Amino acid sequence: MDTSHSSVITLTTDFGTNDPYIGVMKGVILNINPHIHIVDITHSIPPQNIHDAAFIIDSAYRYFPSGSIHVVVVDPGVGSTRRAIACQTETGCFVCPDNGVLSYVLDEDAPYRAVSVDNTEYCLPEISNTFHGRDIFAPIAAHLSRGIPLGDIGGTVNNLVRLNSSKAQVTKTEIIGRIIWIDSFGNLISNISSEIFESTIARENFAIRVGNAEINRLNGSYAESQAGECLAIIGSFGQLEISVNQGNAAQRLELKRGDPIVVRKTEKIRH
Amino acid sequence: MDTSHSSVITLTTDFGTNDPYIGVMKGVILNINPHIHIVDITHSIPPQNIHDAAFIIDSAYRYFPSGSIHVVVVDPGVGSTRRAIACQTETGCFVCPDNGVLSYVLDEDAPYRAVSVDNTEYCLPEISNTFHGRDIFAPIAAHLSRGIPLGDIGGTVNNLVRLNSSKAQVTKTEIIGRIIWIDSFGNLISNISSEIFESTIARENFAIRVGNAEINRLNGSYAESQAGECLAIIGSFGQLEISVNQGNAAQRLELKRGDPIVVRKTEKIRH
Amino acid sequence: MDTSHSSVITLTTDFGTNDPYIGVMKGVILNINPHIHIVDITHSIPPQNIHDAAFIIDSAYRYFPSGSIHVVVVDPGVGSTRRAIACQTETGCFVCPDNGVLSYVLDEDAPYRAVSVDNTEYCLPEISNTFHGRDIFAPIAAHLSRGIPLGDIGGTVNNLVRLNSSKAQVTKTEIIGRIIWIDSFGNLISNISSEIFESTIARENFAIRVGNAEINRLNGSYAESQAGECLAIIGSFGQLEISVNQGNAAQRLELKRGDPIVVRKTEKIRH
Repeated sequence: MDTSHSSVITLTTDFGTNDPYIGVMKGVILNINPHIHIVDITHSIPPQNIHDAAFIIDSAYRYFPSGSIHVVVVDPGVGSTRRAIACQTETGCFVCPDNGVLSYVLDEDAPYRAVSVDNTEYCLPEISNTFHGRDIFAPIAAHLSRGIPLGDIGGTVNNLVRLNSSKAQVTKTEIIGRIIWIDSFGNLISNISSEIFESTIARENFAIRVGNAEINRLNGSYAESQAGECLAIIGSFGQLEISVNQGNAAQRLELKRGDPIVVRKTEKIRH
Repeated sequence: MDTSHSSVITLTTDFGTNDPYIGVMKGVILNINPHIHIVDITHSIPPQNIHDAAFIIDSAYRYFPSGSIHVVVVDPGVGSTRRAIACQTETGCFVCPDNGVLSYVLDEDAPYRAVSVDNTEYCLPEISNTFHGRDIFAPIAAHLSRGIPLGDIGGTVNNLVRLNSSKAQVTKTEIIGRIIWIDSFGNLISNISSEIFESTIARENFAIRVGNAEINRLNGSYAESQAGECLAIIGSFGQLEISVNQGNAAQRLELKRGDPIVVRKTEKIRH
Repeated sequence: MDTSHSSVITLTTDFGTNDPYIGVMKGVILNINPHIHIVDITHSIPPQNIHDAAFIIDSAYRYFPSGSIHVVVVDPGVGSTRRAIACQTETGCFVCPDNGVLSYVLDEDAPYRAVSVDNTEYCLPEISNTFHGRDIFAPIAAHLSRGIPLGDIGGTVNNLVRLNSSKAQVTKTEIIGRIIWIDSFGNLISNISSEIFESTIARENFAIRVGNAEINRLNGSYAESQAGECLAIIGSFGQLEISVNQGNAAQRLELKRGDPIVVRKTEKIRH
């Protein structure tokens, strides 16, 4: 649980890449630690969407070197009284607003130790009310990567903001989920984890209803289906996904984020 | 005013990121200096828009380590007789076509010393007429980052191309500005700097007219307004911006780059 | 033909940059080799378009330091029996599915030595059927960059999948080509190489037909034409391109990828 001399800082934001904002954050970081690797996770979180940021950072952080520092800036409350925090876990360190973006990370990667940014000595000299990514989060992450102790940043905080669970609901006969992310291939990623799917369905027959499609089997790979065929699979996020082999499921089924996906146990013979 | 052994090269272009152009420039740079950090500022400058490039590099360079080398390639005159230059200032070194992209940087970051690229020894062996980013600007920047003296590149030039000022006009009763950038949140960035705003308006009442909106106060933060409310603020560019708290001002007000924004002194009581 | 201790890994995929996929691949690489430079060539290959991936990597790899490792993941057959390979050439090392993405590289950069990924010791512990970029290609590239011998990865393979040639057809009087890439400026890049054009046309008169335009001369630079004028030029890919000086040829001519472009020898006086 120590970041001393991290070699990687990751960035996850809703800033897009058209504006100079991300470049500026990298400049601030390199000014403080010229030896750091900076990796973009994504800057395409929908504006101000804290749930999406929480999902994306949770899906990505575990693939980075232990001790990496993850900056997450989706921050509708910038300039308000919401806290800026640095939060160290077993796996890494997260620098972000205290608005719930760490909810899913902390569901698994506990225990943690979090501090609020009280000491502005490690921030830029002028702190705006509109761009804490530049003025607070980037410099704090850079200083942490050089090995300053977490406690130097500020006092311990325990009651971090947590989002309501986004997990699918499970009843005796159904899993009621929804689409939480659509990737650039048009794959529909649901909030139904492989664990929930497997423990609920076990070896029984089932029907997945999503849009106007019904799917009665789980593929092991895309290649088990014909090109153009609609299929269900446990995807690379570890969640139930709906895909079209070599096609775009979101376009085919005309579905969008938030749309329901329901898995029902059936007596029908599995196709 | 010396770049010897810079550790950062930044890139600002209108190339987009769909094509291999940026990757190729990075390959050329790493071939010459494998120890350099390369940072993208943005590649989304509107095609051939020199004013926008001038604005963006001016807004970003100051956040990078002193001595960083900034490559700016927005170059409608590629292959013509326009000069290629390297320009060293107090803060950094800029490698770019001599077409005005440094206008706003040089308004502040003087004195400078500029040379034209006369010596093709530091360029790629074959210089095309279509891609000087790859053939001239990238290799020149990489060699500069390794410490070659500016004078080795070519002769001193003094009469750099400068754009007309893009600053807002100030009269006794008004500041007449326009929208010069719209960021990915839909914030409308004007050419009215905080200095002009403050020195003109001082403590008087005022009305900001932009599209069909009138705004009579300056926010200190987004959070001072309700979600969805239209507001004026000095944004992270240090310019007057029009925003919608947790919304998109460009969509709400149906405004685009170039549209006017006028601040008028009023006798009305401030709302 | 040895990669020992490469300092650069490039990435070329059809993953886009909205999803965390590219960030995750970089995390996997940095976990294995924290000292590597990772460079994005592009992540905007149209989904599953192997021809485009083959064209783009061929256009870019030669600009990178000798011994660089190039990861190309456009992989419609992920999870099927298609092989994963690492292929070393004179210039670099390529890690990719064996589906033809190296076709154009291997047309020139021979001889090569390729192995199939038989030894999963250098892959992630769990190999999914949906994301070999993360589970196989990224870790294999990272281990290669640290100097493991190619032979440790798996057995030699010789019959790599090759795409049919995409080269233009040449007759006695014509070159029959097509548009194979449209860049973000709207330049129409054809499959007519400068070599084919020059050897076929030599010093004769010609007419280039593309859409409803006819062009009778080859520009040496954009600047030889008026702003807004349609022109033909050997572009930075080394192919015949159709451009509009300071404009967008794809929009002007309403053309798309795959559309024909024909160069015919004429008796007409060259304009």
